[in-house]
Amino acid sequence: GNPLVLLAGPCVLESYERSLYIGKTIKEITSRLGIPYVFKASFDKANRSSYNGYRGPGLEKGLKWLQSIKDELNVPVVTDIHNETQVEPVSKVVDVLQIPAFLSRQTDLLYTAAKSGCVVNVKKGQFLAPADMKNVVKKLEEAGSEKILLTERGASFGYNNLVVDMRSFPIMRSTGYPVIFDATHSVQLPGGAGTSSAGNREYVEFLARGAAGVGVDGFFMEVHDNPEEALCDGPNMVYLDKLEDLLKDLIAINEITKKKINK
Amino acid sequence: GNPLVLLAGPCVLESYERSLYIGKTIKEITSRLGIPYVFKASFDKANRSSYNGYRGPGLEKGLKWLQSIKDELNVPVVTDIHNETQVEPVSKVVDVLQIPAFLSRQTDLLYTAAKSGCVVNVKKGQFLAPADMKNVVKKLEEAGSEKILLTERGASFGYNNLVVDMRSFPIMRSTGYPVIFDATHSVQLPGGAGTSSAGNREYVEFLARGAAGVGVDGFFMEVHDNPEEALCDGPNMVYLDKLEDLLKDLIAINEITKKKINK
Amino acid sequence: GNPLVLLAGPCVLESYERSLYIGKTIKEITSRLGIPYVFKASFDKANRSSYNGYRGPGLEKGLKWLQSIKDELNVPVVTDIHNETQVEPVSKVVDVLQIPAFLSRQTDLLYTAAKSGCVVNVKKGQFLAPADMKNVVKKLEEAGSEKILLTERGASFGYNNLVVDMRSFPIMRSTGYPVIFDATHSVQLPGGAGTSSAGNREYVEFLARGAAGVGVDGFFMEVHDNPEEALCDGPNMVYLDKLEDLLKDLIAINEITKKKINK
Amino acid sequence: GNPLVLLAGPCVLESYERSLYIGKTIKEITSRLGIPYVFKASFDKANRSSYNGYRGPGLEKGLKWLQSIKDELNVPVVTDIHNETQVEPVSKVVDVLQIPAFLSRQTDLLYTAAKSGCVVNVKKGQFLAPADMKNVVKKLEEAGSEKILLTERGASFGYNNLVVDMRSFPIMRSTGYPVIFDATHSVQLPGGAGTSSAGNREYVEFLARGAAGVGVDGFFMEVHDNPEEALCDGPNMVYLDKLEDLLKDLIAINEITKKKINK
Repeated sequence: GNPLVLLAGPCVLESYERSLYIGKTIKEITSRLGIPYVFKASFDKANRSSYNGYRGPGLEKGLKWLQSIKDELNVPVVTDIHNETQVEPVSKVVDVLQIPAFLSRQTDLLYTAAKSGCVVNVKKGQFLAPADMKNVVKKLEEAGSEKILLTERGASFGYNNLVVDMRSFPIMRSTGYPVIFDATHSVQLPGGAGTSSAGNREYVEFLARGAAGVGVDGFFMEVHDNPEEALCDGPNMVYLDKLEDLLKDLIAINEITKKKINK
Repeated sequence: GNPLVLLAGPCVLESYERSLYIGKTIKEITSRLGIPYVFKASFDKANRSSYNGYRGPGLEKGLKWLQSIKDELNVPVVTDIHNETQVEPVSKVVDVLQIPAFLSRQTDLLYTAAKSGCVVNVKKGQFLAPADMKNVVKKLEEAGSEKILLTERGASFGYNNLVVDMRSFPIMRSTGYPVIFDATHSVQLPGGAGTSSAGNREYVEFLARGAAGVGVDGFFMEVHDNPEEALCDGPNMVYLDKLEDLLKDLIAINEITKKKINK
Repeated sequence: GNPLVLLAGPCVLESYERSLYIGKTIKEITSRLGIPYVFKASFDKANRSSYNGYRGPGLEKGLKWLQSIKDELNVPVVTDIHNETQVEPVSKVVDVLQIPAFLSRQTDLLYTAAKSGCVVNVKKGQFLAPADMKNVVKKLEEAGSEKILLTERGASFGYNNLVVDMRSFPIMRSTGYPVIFDATHSVQLPGGAGTSSAGNREYVEFLARGAAGVGVDGFFMEVHDNPEEALCDGPNMVYLDKLEDLLKDLIAINEITKKKINK
Repeated sequence: GNPLVLLAGPCVLESYERSLYIGKTIKEITSRLGIPYVFKASFDKANRSSYNGYRGPGLEKGLKWLQSIKDELNVPVVTDIHNETQVEPVSKVVDVLQIPAFLSRQTDLLYTAAKSGCVVNVKKGQFLAPADMKNVVKKLEEAGSEKILLTERGASFGYNNLVVDMRSFPIMRSTGYPVIFDATHSVQLPGGAGTSSAGNREYVEFLARGAAGVGVDGFFMEVHDNPEEALCDGPNMVYLDKLEDLLKDLIAINEITKKKINK
């Protein structure tokens, strides 16, 4: 019977002011709607299709900004990490360490993240069957963690395309941990723009409502006040001014679904 | 703002009595819930994995039974056809001619069905992109038909597995025709049982609620009072005594979704 | 230790003269190379993406042309059939009845073709696992046929794309029947050109040599003296004047491979 | 017109003696056959399905062993790395740094490896289209590297299965760099054994001959004198005593193919 949680923010920390503005606006929305909010932004995009892509402010400056935003908004913060050495400094600032999908089977990264005491949110690899996430969970549990989130963000479907197999929600939920739907990365077309990934923002709302119908515990969305200007993942980010309407629908659908998935 | 339509019944006409019983029970449920009902059953299963599978009573006896059930229940009837010669006799009895997924690109079958004056329900081939259904629609329209339904029943995903790509609902809906979700064939594991197809009934309710969240115009479900005894598709059919609860959820979710997909 | 067989010709019977010319040229090539040749052309393309595609001369005229070409060239002939009623007239003319991939699980078509006494060449459905072809073989055997060919033509791989899984050759060969590689349809991009299928002719030679390396019993190729002018499948057909060079490589590779796959 | 290169050895460094024995035997075989040999073994398996899998001797001991084997056999050595910090120590010992498939888009790892001066062998991610490897190549080139190998090891195909799309060889070769076929990982069934990956060793020889027919510059194979005893990837490793026969076929097929792919 828990309310849906929302992990949201810009793809990457662009300027401090813009990141704060986006987070603040989302905080106001989620407060009105009565759902918990976790601010999300990356300090470094470590696997852009090409060098030309903006990577972010980097670890040091990024963590300062995340700390400020956390203090300013009084919300927990999630960010993604890319190797074991980042766990220690990042875990001092954030509440949720996120394991990127490509890295979802890197044993040492999982182990170190689990040891940090933070919540660990693992994005299911595009190459992984939902049932195989039980092995990921086991790695985290054996490192002593019981604060785990599992996120669906699409599975490889031929080339330059992802498909969301919604059977993954009940399958991953059977591990006993909450399941999140990453509604914006799931509509990416990886490599689809030649030197960067394309995406279909138009499907975000459809798939998000679908996931709410199937039954999830929360949503992950990248949100921007002007995705056309965004320095990363513009083609799939949600417009900030459309977020509230979408969340209202998700909450309403969840009211129906949650009676079924919690029994 | 139309209510969800339900196309449902046993996979294949087993005995007349059992088929009638299933149809009658579903009719009672849909009447209580206030949604339109179309009785579905096949007279011939023309592409079983092996000869050993029960194929049904055949065309002549099957059409007699369908006519009787139609008269008895006072509901429209849908059945699938497999070649052009069946269109004429079948279209005299049924209201909706269904084109099986494997046959969804057979030009003459589509053309002849469209000429019959019946509604034509085309199941999207497991090998077809949703966007390619516009070519199927065009074939039907050029034959003079404007009574078209398009049904999602899963796409090939590796071997012996199907995935429901829920982007297909808005994509197919953009043709202007109603879109149906076949919730029971979508959970098949084709060839998964060696000489017949396996299935995962447990996912039907999840995917059906998901489709309602994304936005569809109706559902197709194979339903049986005792799937364990069923002569066809037992592993994926819905239990008759669980149908009403499921439909209630789908209707409730549709109330939320339909405001969005009709705008 | 059998030599590779070649099933080849234009996709569809265009004019009688052109079809004969293509067949005659291929006959000369295969005679020089010492491999058996079966002339291939369709009398009707029954599942074009749209009506606008040329469908061929039809059954009656098509069979007359096939008979003439067969007599003129003194080679066996293969053509594809689309429903049970075609089996009787077509089997009077041709030596090999071909079951299209989309129809590879249609029980009555398989049964009727098997009863005809002709060799039956089944193209594996894009939606079928190679191991599931054992069920197709069983249907043909139970109808009394032992003259069976199994053809690989690609498996669905996401949307508008096919992939050739070369494990399919040993898997299908384990049924005991010869395995053919359809080198030209395997490079199709189904629906890839909007209202027709696109293709990548450039990969034909690569995949054909690959299949020879894995081990097959023959090749199926659509060949045209001027694919740019072809009325069907132009983007993937092989240039007639490049066929001999390609076949020489396939024969040479087969010399190496056949010692392994026949042991 | 270069001869095929072979990158081969045990999956992981088990004992020093066994690793040396396997390398020595392969060296004798490749010397007899006149092809270049690069010894391969991992010092750490960083992404096993579960903790229970043996991970290897670790960086320090592993590099000592690799140096000894390199000196003893007088052959170049390849091993895989998993983060930037490993580049410096590993590049002092090995000749080829290998980027694992899951990590094939990690910018910093590619950059650092490219800067080392070693040859960099990138395994194409199971989630990457062959054409997208041009972006990987560009990252390496922009870091100043021109010593690049690209390796095919299968693409995600549904769940727990990989497919080798042999179009990837000409596509990746069009970057101008040599292309390697990893014949043993390509037959893995990822996660297929529940807590570890299964595999189908029986298909290695088929796919390897196929790749030789399509046209590659070399092969990567994990080889063991007794795969049943192997501490890693047993189900897909090649038997040491079958390697020579297989290589003979690959060399013979390459003689035919290389005239085509080098023109």
